Amino acid sequence: MTEKNRRQLFQSTAGVLVAGLGLTTTAPATSAEVFSSSQKTSSVEPVTKILAQYAAKANVDQIPASVKKEATRTLMNWVGCAVGGSRQEAPNRAVKALQELSGPAKANLLGRSEKFDILNAALINGISSHVLDYDDTHLKTIIHPAGPVASALLALAQHHPTTGREFMNALVIGCEIECRIGNAVYPDHYAKGWHITGTTGVFGAAAAGRLLGLDEARMVHAIGIAASQPVGLKVQFGSDTKSFHPGKAAQNGLLSALLAEKGFTASTVALEGFDGWGQAASTKQDWNEVTSELGQRYELGLNTYKPFACGIVAHPSIDAAIELHNKYHVMPDQVDAIEVKVHPLVLNLMGKTEPKTGLESKFSIYHAIAISLITGRGGEQAFTDSAAQNAQVINLRSKIKVMVDPAIKADQADMRIVQKNGEVLHQFIEHAVGSQNHPMSDAQLEDKFNGLTEGILKPEQSKQLINLCWRVWELDNPALIATHAAA
Amino acid sequence: MTEKNRRQLFQSTAGVLVAGLGLTTTAPATSAEVFSSSQKTSSVEPVTKILAQYAAKANVDQIPASVKKEATRTLMNWVGCAVGGSRQEAPNRAVKALQELSGPAKANLLGRSEKFDILNAALINGISSHVLDYDDTHLKTIIHPAGPVASALLALAQHHPTTGREFMNALVIGCEIECRIGNAVYPDHYAKGWHITGTTGVFGAAAAGRLLGLDEARMVHAIGIAASQPVGLKVQFGSDTKSFHPGKAAQNGLLSALLAEKGFTASTVALEGFDGWGQAASTKQDWNEVTSELGQRYELGLNTYKPFACGIVAHPSIDAAIELHNKYHVMPDQVDAIEVKVHPLVLNLMGKTEPKTGLESKFSIYHAIAISLITGRGGEQAFTDSAAQNAQVINLRSKIKVMVDPAIKADQADMRIVQKNGEVLHQFIEHAVGSQNHPMSDAQLEDKFNGLTEGILKPEQSKQLINLCWRVWELDNPALIATHAAA
Repeated sequence: MTEKNRRQLFQSTAGVLVAGLGLTTTAPATSAEVFSSSQKTSSVEPVTKILAQYAAKANVDQIPASVKKEATRTLMNWVGCAVGGSRQEAPNRAVKALQELSGPAKANLLGRSEKFDILNAALINGISSHVLDYDDTHLKTIIHPAGPVASALLALAQHHPTTGREFMNALVIGCEIECRIGNAVYPDHYAKGWHITGTTGVFGAAAAGRLLGLDEARMVHAIGIAASQPVGLKVQFGSDTKSFHPGKAAQNGLLSALLAEKGFTASTVALEGFDGWGQAASTKQDWNEVTSELGQRYELGLNTYKPFACGIVAHPSIDAAIELHNKYHVMPDQVDAIEVKVHPLVLNLMGKTEPKTGLESKFSIYHAIAISLITGRGGEQAFTDSAAQNAQVINLRSKIKVMVDPAIKADQADMRIVQKNGEVLHQFIEHAVGSQNHPMSDAQLEDKFNGLTEGILKPEQSKQLINLCWRVWELDNPALIATHAAA
Repeated sequence: MTEKNRRQLFQSTAGVLVAGLGLTTTAPATSAEVFSSSQKTSSVEPVTKILAQYAAKANVDQIPASVKKEATRTLMNWVGCAVGGSRQEAPNRAVKALQELSGPAKANLLGRSEKFDILNAALINGISSHVLDYDDTHLKTIIHPAGPVASALLALAQHHPTTGREFMNALVIGCEIECRIGNAVYPDHYAKGWHITGTTGVFGAAAAGRLLGLDEARMVHAIGIAASQPVGLKVQFGSDTKSFHPGKAAQNGLLSALLAEKGFTASTVALEGFDGWGQAASTKQDWNEVTSELGQRYELGLNTYKPFACGIVAHPSIDAAIELHNKYHVMPDQVDAIEVKVHPLVLNLMGKTEPKTGLESKFSIYHAIAISLITGRGGEQAFTDSAAQNAQVINLRSKIKVMVDPAIKADQADMRIVQKNGEVLHQFIEHAVGSQNHPMSDAQLEDKFNGLTEGILKPEQSKQLINLCWRVWELDNPALIATHAAA
């Protein structure tokens, strides 16, 4: 069937379906609407085709070094998160459900011993990478870019050989596609209820088509098939299904690319067309956000990483505590009082004074400050049950006074420690580490990575894995990252 | 992690994520919104729980005999369509893409020789059943109910033994769930661009949980997980992705049930909750349509089947031609002229006067009348390339005059044949066969079935399959239908 024939079929079928015998009497207006809709043509830019051309042809040499570096950091942070989250209940349950249904065991589940077929591995790794809420963030849209894209690409790389250079080019392409589509519909789309990481992530994951060598025409179909499979609602926050979103987006996008490779067709205007994704999923569609300076200006360059394993509003205070720990080696039993001025949201979100469990401790600014002042760390290990129940921590947090100050911005904190000897220590954080204005250093990312993989991978294995991530652009076989991340 | 803990995590995380360091400066309103949203409670009915309770507990004995019969006809029509569509390009391409990824080959692809794992079989069978646009229609919503539900259930039945009675109970439950959710959001949801068969079908397919024996609590999660995975946009009409929609809905719904079985959690208010499916996917949410007389009034009882393999607006004319064929054995070369009065949409949608191919002939009222007058049939065989190019058909269609008459309703046609001997034959169709007011008879359904399976299954096999379908409620093993439908 030719594309022209299909189009004709469409023009008739759309109307025919609703002009149904029993239907015209009950909903004639809609019948007419749908019928006429099939003959409307769009005057907007051919967004789907422009993205497909970019995805099929983008030249890796045109990516600036700074963006390449950020892509590397994005990958490394994602690998750490996926390993770190791999033993949580959500991936455990998904593995149980899919274990006996998986196809050829070609792709590793990061942080685990099982191998699954590539579609199911993409799903599970995507779940693991988001389940700790510790992954990367494109702050303009609150998209977590790596989850859907890297989960799809790494699984595919274990089935379809590629180079590190091609792999990372596809990672950049995928993240650009999802973040730019996000920019086009944010905030309306997000406010409507959609969990934007999964709804735009499916497009990013379709960039797997680049690794399959899809030409522009087939890439149009890959993106088109992806458009029919958005994943994610915000109502799911607080359940396993939240982390399911980037995983399923990875799986759906990868499936779209695999189908398109075999000639499966979709609309060529799936994003911008009448009755397309933009219209259905958002009231705002600023397609210029997608096409403007595509391949020249990189959203991935704006990616950020959470340095601490708790709500982001506590990060400036933790940052201050760690600075004081490092500078003065503060002894908890020498502390008389701690006063911190914070942004008003902090006590709303993290006001728990007596957390009993690791999970509860993630919502206690008092715990967060105490543990990070004592240990100089704020990773997953800082928010365990035993950390929350530690006598020294409990004692120290009782000395902390948190004061809301409207003059303090969201990425700021002002901490003052009065020692028993009368000495006063002071630390003001202008921009917390991990914020746009104060990115995590490579060393801090490594530190976070090691904290996440601790207890899951051997230290030597973790070190090798970090090394592979830093060298990913030069690897002959990026699938090594997956095999080295298995436990 | 307990449900209460998850809820706390949600309440904090939702806000924390957007109260991001770099973000409050650019979008403070959204941060506040999202934060406050997490604490809103809904005052609407607990729709998700009500549906889950129904799905987990509905008693098969309460289904009226007439609905049981309609469910049987729904299944039989679906099997015929799935076999008939199984050799089309869309399923061919999907099979090629998934062949080397499929897991344990437990489930048959109807009309084909391959066996796939149950999730991928559900996908392919759903595609096959819709690709001819010949499947069933719930006219109030234009949902094609069987595709998502039967594709999921039959595949699962090949892995998880069940009885015909339980199988059909789940089929009824699934169709009720999807059609009622459809009623709640139609027409707004459909007008927005969503292909309602795939977006509501995923909920219907989650009724697979009934076959797994999910209790009410797990069924809530199955429906909840499904909510995050709507499939389908109308922009895809005319491409392979249209038929992908019921297939992917089947796969996603079945996956949701399998995950829920292993304890995977979702929101308990995924449909009606703030930031839930209803809010995200529709401007209209009339939840009363879902809950009112649930388990007492059956939408499935309203299901209809297309008797002819072309656009539904041509059906009254074909019906008239077949009546005249049967009554008078009209000889084409004795016909001097044919005049037909039709509903105005007919020429808009089916005005092609000289169709060259089978596909084009589906959009020619002239071909449709000529072929059905000559052969007395209007199935797939009436719309092949050779039928379109047949000299007798071409000659006869040139004698047909189609007149639009606003007094003619969508399910009516008024046909007059003037014979060369001066005799005038007349047939008025009040309600075309297949419409709500004139359902297809069982014999007509069998005839359609045989037309669809012709050339794919042996006649004896087709006969056995029809027999199995009619007896499905009594079968010890409904999976026999799948094995008998393999080619």
